[in-house]
Amino acid sequence: MNYEKYIGVTMDFPTKGISFKDISPLLRDKTAFHNCIDDLAKLAEPYHPDLLCGPESRAFLFGAALAYRMGIGFVMARKAGKLPGVVYQISYQLEYGSATLAIPQKSFEPGQRVLMIDDLMATGGTFSALKELIAMAGGDPVGALTVIRLKELAGEKNIDVPCSSLMDL
Amino acid sequence: MNYEKYIGVTMDFPTKGISFKDISPLLRDKTAFHNCIDDLAKLAEPYHPDLLCGPESRAFLFGAALAYRMGIGFVMARKAGKLPGVVYQISYQLEYGSATLAIPQKSFEPGQRVLMIDDLMATGGTFSALKELIAMAGGDPVGALTVIRLKELAGEKNIDVPCSSLMDL
Repeated sequence: MNYEKYIGVTMDFPTKGISFKDISPLLRDKTAFHNCIDDLAKLAEPYHPDLLCGPESRAFLFGAALAYRMGIGFVMARKAGKLPGVVYQISYQLEYGSATLAIPQKSFEPGQRVLMIDDLMATGGTFSALKELIAMAGGDPVGALTVIRLKELAGEKNIDVPCSSLMDL
Repeated sequence: MNYEKYIGVTMDFPTKGISFKDISPLLRDKTAFHNCIDDLAKLAEPYHPDLLCGPESRAFLFGAALAYRMGIGFVMARKAGKLPGVVYQISYQLEYGSATLAIPQKSFEPGQRVLMIDDLMATGGTFSALKELIAMAGGDPVGALTVIRLKELAGEKNIDVPCSSLMDL
């Protein structure tokens, strides 16, 4: 399926120089969204994940739907201050600005295979931070799966686990 | 299935007087999460929705997985400043604080049946605002579906569409 036509593109949003990719049309179209999740499952299966883990908030859309499709669980990596109790936390640089991600202390059994998921990979900064966070919490980050990869930025070079993507834009 | 044991409870989080419900254990457990989405589908089917719509960010988890399960699309209601282009926008009071939700201008065909979804209903303020937003954008908000309903707050009294919930806590 040609998913590219379901991605809106807006130049200079949210800041100058950024070409924003809008996933709204992909989510709204029942056939495109359903096929997208099925195709993500095909990309995810070779990693044999026990769990998926993705950052707030857009990864929640693809991560939870894919977890349901694959019959596995999903761990939310949330923004700072959103989770109660003891958390593991990491701060990192984004394509624009900086961010902090946190997961609950007991998110993984030791050695569980965790496939990271996000809607878009730019420089790979989010996945790099998430990989560290998963390892801190005792999980085994086995790979990174993304709906959209910005091929010019080659973010996969900055992440030392295998990466798969549905679309290269 | 007894879902209640998969919901963490933290008193006085994020502010004093709030009993925070943590959905992390529900999402992480493959059986509980899978059954939860299947049971939400049973609650959703009588509304015959063309689309689901839920607010950033926790509704994205259940909304997208349920949309996949039901073979329909999902419309994100995002926080202010997250969507490019022309949007419909509404501001409202929360159980703690205030918030703004926005959806893209062309989210619905006129008269499309839209089922609202969220992880938790407290006073019903978010659903009331979302209902107005969906109507502004030309959709028909036919009901509200929530994973957790705080029964003491009886939020359904503040929303003039039918409400369904998986758990009453």
